[in-house]
Amino acid sequence: MLSALDLARRIEAGELTPRAVVEICAEAIAAHEPHIGAFAALDLDAARCAAEESRLAATPLRGLPVGVKDIFDTADLPTQYGSRIYAGHRPRADAAVVAMVRRAGGLVLGKTVTTEFASLVPAGTRNPRNLAHTPGGSSSGSAAAVAAAMLPIALGSQTGGSVIRPAAFCGIVGFKPSYQLIPTVGMKAFSWHLDTVGLFAAGVADVAFAAAAITDRSLRVDRRTPAAPRLALVRTHLWGEASAAMQATIEAAARAAVRAGATVTELSLPPILEEAHRLHRTIQDYEAFRALAYEYDHHRDTIAASLREQLDHAATISSADYDAARSVAKRARLALVDLMSGYDAILTPSAPGAAPFGLGSTGDPVFNRLWTQMGTPCINVPVSNDDELPLGLQIVGRFGRDHAALEAALFLERAITPR
Amino acid sequence: MLSALDLARRIEAGELTPRAVVEICAEAIAAHEPHIGAFAALDLDAARCAAEESRLAATPLRGLPVGVKDIFDTADLPTQYGSRIYAGHRPRADAAVVAMVRRAGGLVLGKTVTTEFASLVPAGTRNPRNLAHTPGGSSSGSAAAVAAAMLPIALGSQTGGSVIRPAAFCGIVGFKPSYQLIPTVGMKAFSWHLDTVGLFAAGVADVAFAAAAITDRSLRVDRRTPAAPRLALVRTHLWGEASAAMQATIEAAARAAVRAGATVTELSLPPILEEAHRLHRTIQDYEAFRALAYEYDHHRDTIAASLREQLDHAATISSADYDAARSVAKRARLALVDLMSGYDAILTPSAPGAAPFGLGSTGDPVFNRLWTQMGTPCINVPVSNDDELPLGLQIVGRFGRDHAALEAALFLERAITPR
Repeated sequence: MLSALDLARRIEAGELTPRAVVEICAEAIAAHEPHIGAFAALDLDAARCAAEESRLAATPLRGLPVGVKDIFDTADLPTQYGSRIYAGHRPRADAAVVAMVRRAGGLVLGKTVTTEFASLVPAGTRNPRNLAHTPGGSSSGSAAAVAAAMLPIALGSQTGGSVIRPAAFCGIVGFKPSYQLIPTVGMKAFSWHLDTVGLFAAGVADVAFAAAAITDRSLRVDRRTPAAPRLALVRTHLWGEASAAMQATIEAAARAAVRAGATVTELSLPPILEEAHRLHRTIQDYEAFRALAYEYDHHRDTIAASLREQLDHAATISSADYDAARSVAKRARLALVDLMSGYDAILTPSAPGAAPFGLGSTGDPVFNRLWTQMGTPCINVPVSNDDELPLGLQIVGRFGRDHAALEAALFLERAITPR
Repeated sequence: MLSALDLARRIEAGELTPRAVVEICAEAIAAHEPHIGAFAALDLDAARCAAEESRLAATPLRGLPVGVKDIFDTADLPTQYGSRIYAGHRPRADAAVVAMVRRAGGLVLGKTVTTEFASLVPAGTRNPRNLAHTPGGSSSGSAAAVAAAMLPIALGSQTGGSVIRPAAFCGIVGFKPSYQLIPTVGMKAFSWHLDTVGLFAAGVADVAFAAAAITDRSLRVDRRTPAAPRLALVRTHLWGEASAAMQATIEAAARAAVRAGATVTELSLPPILEEAHRLHRTIQDYEAFRALAYEYDHHRDTIAASLREQLDHAATISSADYDAARSVAKRARLALVDLMSGYDAILTPSAPGAAPFGLGSTGDPVFNRLWTQMGTPCINVPVSNDDELPLGLQIVGRFGRDHAALEAALFLERAITPR
């Protein structure tokens, strides 16, 4: 895979040019894209042209190529949100995060495949680790492109588990920052209290580098050895839904973290958090029925059957039930603040197991929904699994403490790496 | 003015048809629009056609015409956000609130004038109470159209004081609900932590009727006599900026409320709230520099000079200063919850005074910024002022308790009305 941090350092040192990095990506795209299908739109020539700008080497992103999930508006590339309703759509403006990437010196190489409106409807992208398996969703193309070394950095979004799950399935790092750290302006909305912009890269230090550059925050983790974190091992009430391999991997990771100097304490979630998990769907779907109101009311037949049925059901959720669910979520967030006060991060599965076989499903976001609703930073730390597909460890940090979460993830990444 | 509630009742009773109401509006528009300039786009024929739908009389909005501030996307009407950059723009979808209005049985009669990107840059709309004066901004057209009886209901938005201030200047009721009660999906963003969708109507019961219908919440206040509220009279540290007439009007309203049975207690705001007021601009402008990044980076010369300069300055606000301002805002919200625990609502000025002379400024949002940032429901209750321009009383409720705020506003509206 392409380490964003290594590439940036080599550009900084004058050993590599932004243009040369575009060619590295172009070669990988030529080799892998025909099998994987990670891109919804691609403009290598525009990126080559933009790569010649002399200011790039001095920018935070050093002129590195970035893939943009096709749920974000781009003025110079088609934007279809994975939906036939938006065939040929070309927005008038870039989404805020796209403009922020460009300001930071990133080159938008193309749009990556999203599932329809970032829902659970599968798209055609294949998992680079095994083409017969899903790469996960909804940020399918971004995760697959980074995993196949076609891009060093890609943007995604998560409303249920659309960053952490594909990162886990593709064996890369996914970072869902604290809610609203990165603006959703110009991103097609599904659920405004849940939609969160996220990032993909090869390793934890790479994703932290990209996040620091784009958000202009002190998020980098490559400048000092990470402190040993106080981790809470949270199996959640969903533990039984994790595969035996997933369970064993979490437990092995906890032991490795302890060996490396971390403290690991088993922690149970109080009932209010289980309730918040259960009510994620109420909030998500009530809001989706309104965020996608125009599409549902005017183009219902052009919406994929499973999403259409989800919205049909969403129409029956009462405002009273929604308000009650929001109230539970608020109380759960307060309970979580208390619960996490003695810990730097939670260790929990990123998904029930490895990427499922086939392209008929993008997998289950069951281990992600709660944390999306809590607005906490989450990072997938990939675990390679011999000849099998990778598994994902999820680090959940405290709200607004994204740097500490990234440091804990880096510590874990190193602790589980064989020397 | 057109009372939305009266019109709805007459439609319900079969005394009036939605089509007849469209004609009432059309006549008022023919008479007043040439002088006032409240509309950015108008499609009376489409509204006439939609008014024939038989289901309308049974809908929550009963087929009433609604004006939509041109900051919200509409698929069937041009959407220019008050900016030449968007000349001829026709979005692919309706904003969520526009779709919610249609679902509730409202007829979108036209788009109302917004200042450029809902900023302080004045537009050409005139105040129906005195054409030589500003109607306020940024929801200039919506407030003016309701004040001139051209519409019974109009949508607006507030980031600083863009609902409450024009309502005060035009002598109508403006309602800024709790933050995110109405989704901003499909609204051109200026500041994602502040942008709030609001409503205009003739009276408090009218705006509550419209809000109830559009949000599907129990917000109506016309079904029982409002309870006598516990009001806090909050002069704020800005009291000196209120005109003598404004100060006298607030004090007279407080006495009238007491005579009508309310309790009124003078309340001072703690320093953290003054600090939050001061830092509103930091949050607003930092976010605007990102929300409008594409326009600033690609069409800077097409942005009005004063907004361009505001964004030039916004570019210098550091992420650290922004994060610190957000932290103050959060602490201020918690302090306000405590402060208001013994009260149903705050009574405070809506603006420093009446609408300023001329169209060179939309007036000062100084009495609005704090409450936008606190996310609390606000209502302008107009006070007619003999031959002068009207003044505005501002009722500020507790976050999430929009019905109680509307009831307090109705109580005040009745208390100050001469019998």
